[in-house]
Amino acid sequence: MAKTNAFYAQSGGVTAVINASACGVIETARLNKDRIGKVYAGRNGIIGALTEDLIDTGKESASAIAALRSTPSGAFGSCRFKLKSLDANRREYERLIEVFKAHNIGYFFYNGGGDSADTCFKVSQLSQSMGYPLQAIHVPKTIDNDLPITDCCPGFGSVAKYVAVSTLEASFDVRSMAKTSTKVFVVEVMGRHAGWIAAAGGLVEDQGIPVVVLFPEIEFNEAKFLKRVDKLVKEHGFCTVVVSEGCHHPDGTFLAEQGARDAFGHAQLGGAAPVVANMVKNALGYKFHWAVADYLQRAARHIASATDVKQAYELGAKAVELALAGRHAVMPTVERISDAPYKYRIGVAELAKVANVEKFMPRDFITKDGFGITDKCKRYLTPLIQGEDYPKYKGGLPVYVTLKNVAVAKKLPAFSLK
Amino acid sequence: MAKTNAFYAQSGGVTAVINASACGVIETARLNKDRIGKVYAGRNGIIGALTEDLIDTGKESASAIAALRSTPSGAFGSCRFKLKSLDANRREYERLIEVFKAHNIGYFFYNGGGDSADTCFKVSQLSQSMGYPLQAIHVPKTIDNDLPITDCCPGFGSVAKYVAVSTLEASFDVRSMAKTSTKVFVVEVMGRHAGWIAAAGGLVEDQGIPVVVLFPEIEFNEAKFLKRVDKLVKEHGFCTVVVSEGCHHPDGTFLAEQGARDAFGHAQLGGAAPVVANMVKNALGYKFHWAVADYLQRAARHIASATDVKQAYELGAKAVELALAGRHAVMPTVERISDAPYKYRIGVAELAKVANVEKFMPRDFITKDGFGITDKCKRYLTPLIQGEDYPKYKGGLPVYVTLKNVAVAKKLPAFSLK
Repeated sequence: MAKTNAFYAQSGGVTAVINASACGVIETARLNKDRIGKVYAGRNGIIGALTEDLIDTGKESASAIAALRSTPSGAFGSCRFKLKSLDANRREYERLIEVFKAHNIGYFFYNGGGDSADTCFKVSQLSQSMGYPLQAIHVPKTIDNDLPITDCCPGFGSVAKYVAVSTLEASFDVRSMAKTSTKVFVVEVMGRHAGWIAAAGGLVEDQGIPVVVLFPEIEFNEAKFLKRVDKLVKEHGFCTVVVSEGCHHPDGTFLAEQGARDAFGHAQLGGAAPVVANMVKNALGYKFHWAVADYLQRAARHIASATDVKQAYELGAKAVELALAGRHAVMPTVERISDAPYKYRIGVAELAKVANVEKFMPRDFITKDGFGITDKCKRYLTPLIQGEDYPKYKGGLPVYVTLKNVAVAKKLPAFSLK
Repeated sequence: MAKTNAFYAQSGGVTAVINASACGVIETARLNKDRIGKVYAGRNGIIGALTEDLIDTGKESASAIAALRSTPSGAFGSCRFKLKSLDANRREYERLIEVFKAHNIGYFFYNGGGDSADTCFKVSQLSQSMGYPLQAIHVPKTIDNDLPITDCCPGFGSVAKYVAVSTLEASFDVRSMAKTSTKVFVVEVMGRHAGWIAAAGGLVEDQGIPVVVLFPEIEFNEAKFLKRVDKLVKEHGFCTVVVSEGCHHPDGTFLAEQGARDAFGHAQLGGAAPVVANMVKNALGYKFHWAVADYLQRAARHIASATDVKQAYELGAKAVELALAGRHAVMPTVERISDAPYKYRIGVAELAKVANVEKFMPRDFITKDGFGITDKCKRYLTPLIQGEDYPKYKGGLPVYVTLKNVAVAKKLPAFSLK
């Protein structure tokens, strides 16, 4: 088998551990220099492939690559750029193949969520039909935890740990203050379609915290919600609300879209948290505080889950092993063997079965009243937030690596992104 | 000298390390059982003293008290309750003395910020004039870092570390995404009057992050701000904005008070971050994300500064030693000896000089353009975020203690808070 180069790209919203997957891919490729030549990374994801803006990861030292394991964000740049369907834009897919051909790339590792899995699958199919067979392997990544088949997605465990820890800490805070001040604390977390991240906030219940979770999977019922908050405050003196950004009214409008306008009449792109907090204040009169964690949650490498970091690395490494074993159009997965003690193995899924399938919270992971998580959900979540994997610190700050990202010389005419 | 009991109370907004001060007070008192009898804590701060709602800390095990060192929030409850002036409400001050007398309390340890220092001072003065001499010692605590004389305030170093780490992580995130998505990330931090916390966000500049800091000490100039953001985005492709909740327009109105209203016409109590983010979007068209850290920042014991935890404990311990040495109406302080290597000693300040003085950022800690911090400020801040002091974890979550908080039998008639 001829020695070819590999291409790796990061796609979509980045996470605390996507670089750990990059580390797994690159380190494993370096261990197989007889089979894999250079590992090129796309600068800003797939855009780097389309514009032939490749990064030579061979210019990075072993220690810089090793440091990726404990560095959040996307070290090569990511992008939000969805390739259209093959029919609508065959030109882009063909350009990818041309770039790969020009740089003798035989392995395509695409690190992303559902849309990227779909792209990866199409590239694989097209490469076969164009007579330039490419081993396209998808490396799962998404804080949303919404990929099918795999038990969990790298990135999720760390966000879940951040949300559970932060919700616990802030709940202790509001409990201290409730006698004369804040009685309701609202924290907004990510998850536009699936409530996995919000569910992690529900884990604080077992620490004695009265908590209400608002999921995208459950239509928001204001009267029921206010009644629940009021009951908890009357019983415990305080309560915490974890609201998913995707929480919505029965008509489909997000809570965050309350039509708020600033003094100049501009639509305020607000969050769900202030909307929920003001709702509580107006109806029940309780003093509130609210937080919107936004990027802080998905970038929080300082409190990453050790389980998540390990799996992110292993799935990156496995992707290379699968490619070397001749597989294509597949994605390595996490297969859970048992909850407690937590055991898993790395499996494989066909991309044809992964692409365009979203995994929502099962109804039996959410309590009957729709405001909390069940024991079954707790058994699922708990192993994923296990263990701490602290970065090194210098001068009080974590040591995160910024790579040199040296460009590879171009060989093709320029290509315009339409 | 007769053996008397001690009273300890937590006041105002809680922090990640106020319980470390409580731990210092209680453990040091327990080492001096020949001089100090019981240590009573006020349930919900000074309200517990006024209503004779005392907690017997003697009922807590040594390990529970030790666990306070790594537990955020106020373990006995805090309160926002400012005693009026002596003239306006002598009744409350006299009630305090009555309660202290009834429970043979000779030591009064008050753990709080500027207002509490003032109360502590007044109680000390009144007790002398009422012929019930009380050794009133104030233990400094405030994330706002605005107490005078002391070089820094327990609680601040940990918030500063949280803000610096989180800003760094989120900035790495936006840098990854900037090519096709978010170009400006705005994070709002606490600090209504003083910009110390926002300043900590400025520390990421030395990590290669283009950052704009908005301080309460500098009047907001929208045109200048937008120009600065635009320049940074054009140069670096992205930028991060750290905005203090106290940032305000020249007329004194806070940025957060933009008069936004929801669909029902209710005033939206929004944050400064969404206002700033929308301002950038409307004027420059850059895609943004924003976060409001709120309680997450001050409760974040998981990323507390080891320096801060150590000083919080030492100041609590020192308060007891000062009392045993016969001092009253004083506050132990941090006296900085050198920046690098960082050296400090614990000093003492007269409460008369502490009460009602707020310490703002010196002008030479802020860059000339008003959007960043100077090297002098960095030399001040850096030692305060040094070191990590991780809590223990179980099941993926930090082990934080909830005390039994057993009530002491009441001896006096009830007292109504007016």
